[in-house]
Amino acid sequence: MKNKMITSRDEDFAKWYTDIVRAAHLADYSSVKGCIVIEPNGYAIWEKMQEILDKKFKELGHINCQMPFLIPESLLKKEGELVEGFAPEVAWVTEGGEKKLEERLCIRPTSETMFSDYYSTHVKSYRDLPLLYNQWCNVLRWEKETRPFLRSREFLWQEGHTIHATEEEAIKETNQMVEVYRWFHNEILAIPSICGKKTEKEKFAGAEYTLTNEALMYNGVALQAGTSHYFGQKFSKAYDIKFTNQDNQEEYAYQTSWGTATRMIGGLIMVHSDDYGLVLPPRIAPKQVVIIPIGNDEEVINLAKKYKELLNENNITAYIDDSNKSPGFKFAEAEVNGIPLRIEIGKRDLEQGKITFTRRDTREKIQSEIEIDIVSYVRDLLEIIQKDMYEKAKERRDSLTFEAHNLKEMEKILNTQPGFIHAMWCGNKECEEKIKEIKGCKSRCVLENAKPIDDKCVCCGKKAKELVVWGIQY
Amino acid sequence: MKNKMITSRDEDFAKWYTDIVRAAHLADYSSVKGCIVIEPNGYAIWEKMQEILDKKFKELGHINCQMPFLIPESLLKKEGELVEGFAPEVAWVTEGGEKKLEERLCIRPTSETMFSDYYSTHVKSYRDLPLLYNQWCNVLRWEKETRPFLRSREFLWQEGHTIHATEEEAIKETNQMVEVYRWFHNEILAIPSICGKKTEKEKFAGAEYTLTNEALMYNGVALQAGTSHYFGQKFSKAYDIKFTNQDNQEEYAYQTSWGTATRMIGGLIMVHSDDYGLVLPPRIAPKQVVIIPIGNDEEVINLAKKYKELLNENNITAYIDDSNKSPGFKFAEAEVNGIPLRIEIGKRDLEQGKITFTRRDTREKIQSEIEIDIVSYVRDLLEIIQKDMYEKAKERRDSLTFEAHNLKEMEKILNTQPGFIHAMWCGNKECEEKIKEIKGCKSRCVLENAKPIDDKCVCCGKKAKELVVWGIQY
Repeated sequence: MKNKMITSRDEDFAKWYTDIVRAAHLADYSSVKGCIVIEPNGYAIWEKMQEILDKKFKELGHINCQMPFLIPESLLKKEGELVEGFAPEVAWVTEGGEKKLEERLCIRPTSETMFSDYYSTHVKSYRDLPLLYNQWCNVLRWEKETRPFLRSREFLWQEGHTIHATEEEAIKETNQMVEVYRWFHNEILAIPSICGKKTEKEKFAGAEYTLTNEALMYNGVALQAGTSHYFGQKFSKAYDIKFTNQDNQEEYAYQTSWGTATRMIGGLIMVHSDDYGLVLPPRIAPKQVVIIPIGNDEEVINLAKKYKELLNENNITAYIDDSNKSPGFKFAEAEVNGIPLRIEIGKRDLEQGKITFTRRDTREKIQSEIEIDIVSYVRDLLEIIQKDMYEKAKERRDSLTFEAHNLKEMEKILNTQPGFIHAMWCGNKECEEKIKEIKGCKSRCVLENAKPIDDKCVCCGKKAKELVVWGIQY
Repeated sequence: MKNKMITSRDEDFAKWYTDIVRAAHLADYSSVKGCIVIEPNGYAIWEKMQEILDKKFKELGHINCQMPFLIPESLLKKEGELVEGFAPEVAWVTEGGEKKLEERLCIRPTSETMFSDYYSTHVKSYRDLPLLYNQWCNVLRWEKETRPFLRSREFLWQEGHTIHATEEEAIKETNQMVEVYRWFHNEILAIPSICGKKTEKEKFAGAEYTLTNEALMYNGVALQAGTSHYFGQKFSKAYDIKFTNQDNQEEYAYQTSWGTATRMIGGLIMVHSDDYGLVLPPRIAPKQVVIIPIGNDEEVINLAKKYKELLNENNITAYIDDSNKSPGFKFAEAEVNGIPLRIEIGKRDLEQGKITFTRRDTREKIQSEIEIDIVSYVRDLLEIIQKDMYEKAKERRDSLTFEAHNLKEMEKILNTQPGFIHAMWCGNKECEEKIKEIKGCKSRCVLENAKPIDDKCVCCGKKAKELVVWGIQY
């Protein structure tokens, strides 16, 4: 039965999205304009994201720390490109302790400034390097248009900031971290993402270059979901981070930064969910299995408890819904909340030696004999769900991936059904700006080493330099 | 050998403290006045604190969420006592996106306001209750005098905010959570804390009453380290949080809040550390065991690796220091960083079938036969260290716990060697204020149901009502 709280996805995608956010209790608007309350169901997804990413970061040698969230204006202004890029969207603290401050303090929109300031007093010799630091924190960007998770003024994220003795090492780190994000999206979130370099226009303010992970939503709109920046010596020169290298000479250090945020929750919704509510891939679902006993029969209840214990002991997160609600209500609730697998146990089924599983992704019911090894059966089924969700998302993305050879073709695609548009580009900013005039379409990333699909620029028709993926973005 | 970077604790306690913070790389001053950088060694302790407390909170049914960190002025002002209490120490955002804001936004000093605002639209029926929410976040209080961890403008903490259908249930929650803090301090941090009720003067702004955990530092100064507040209906009336109770009548809900912060790291240092550096109880130490191979002998290296693996497999955090530094340097580094147990493996010892353990807390060397079960041996030793550290801290606290029967006695104690002072009190604020004139001594907490030590108030000499613990505080 279709959930009445949820607008149809094909009817009004934007309303469908906010309906899902609300119906699954992921987030709510707050009394602070542009800021959301991340409700427990939404926060549990973020905790799971943090757990998995943090483990991976640490395996790769990163350690966590915490920088102040306020940045003195004079310190912020030391790196000009960064300031220019972020100035329009920062907020300022001007009063504290009932007094006007002598210097305005900016609330961090990102923390290159604070890390660089710290490194400038702590990095002295190549022996101190590399420092592979990361922090999990909140940041603030004064956005005009906001949308829960996808774009809100305050959001939660992680920002890695590393500093190295050589260019090679820093470049390796930059590449490694965008690959971590690609792995996370593909393997954990079941979101097929594409990786590539941002154009000069779209790169991070202050970076030498930016690598990005780009995902495509169900409606063909792109989402930037994890970026990794190579700074070279830009910040080390601005903040005077010098070290003595192996040849006993002073040198400016090489830096990177990389981050991903709660907006991935928005991506999860927009790629996988349907008109019945949230759909979560098993590997990121805080609760993977719900067991619903039908009726109060002791044997039924005991089997439910046994299953729950067995599953939990084997690292599958299962819970029993033993509330006073009707089975139908419980089914709908598990469905709207995106629990990947539902197990129903009824007395009659039990007598017939049967048990019913329902997949959230396909809503398919599967009857099985009761004499199964519940742990391996559920584990296998969850893996199948995970893989199928990835394949389905990939099929959708591929079906929304187009080629354009001239502006007319591009316009036609964007006006019919947007998606990822592969098109050649001459490398000139003017062409990028002209393309942006079509519904705000931007370059997503450059596909380096890709086979050219044309020899002319999609916009000006002059000699093409690179194959670029274009698209409308959130 | 005494660490040259560290001032003697008995010579200059304040300087000793900041020396430890710096030498063990726990935190550093930042370019933002009153805010610190929590360095990886310090942040790892906070992560361990979070891990243990979060698990306990969840076992008790709490779930995490995230409220906006900005509070509109008009919303903040709804609960008068809270505003009065926090007004002198809040900071204001007045500009955002290059414009002056219509309404100032306060950076959260605590989040009763935002939780109450949220609850006011989400709590409708007794069936919605209780809501047992918690958040881990940063807060800001514009302190004038700051000290790393103990008192800084920005700090990290958790704040639980729960809402209930009955007074009884909310009171039970308030008591339960101060007991969680007590357990955490005694069992995990090896800090013997005392629990009790705050006086009216010292309770949280807006609370009906506050329960507190009070620890005593090595120098006899008290540290409030974890409080739990019962709000009754104060906030629900101010923010209009009404629900329909079981008798189908409208009623204001009952709330609590409870929190503890990174200042516990300061407490850990001030209770346990010594002139050689940080000393950490094994249960909170991010790294519990360091294995130092002496020389490059293959047998030695292999044994070190085997030990490390065995210990890690059994949930004991061990690492090998195989850097190029000299053994003496490695010993000193492990010592200053507070690694609870050091294992030295040398070729000569190995030939003699011996192995050397060094306890960080007592700095005692223990030689053992090599044919031990390394896992159970280390586990037992860590448990002994944990218990001994608690006992030592308790002895110190008890030796600094005094009784006073009149102001003269109180003054004498505070001028000689401060500590916890047990003294009777008439219940009048005037006496509390008079006592505060002696070196800022405040009531720490009321010991309810305690045996009176006198029948007269320590200050005015009139009839005493309660036994109170007094002390100077951080």
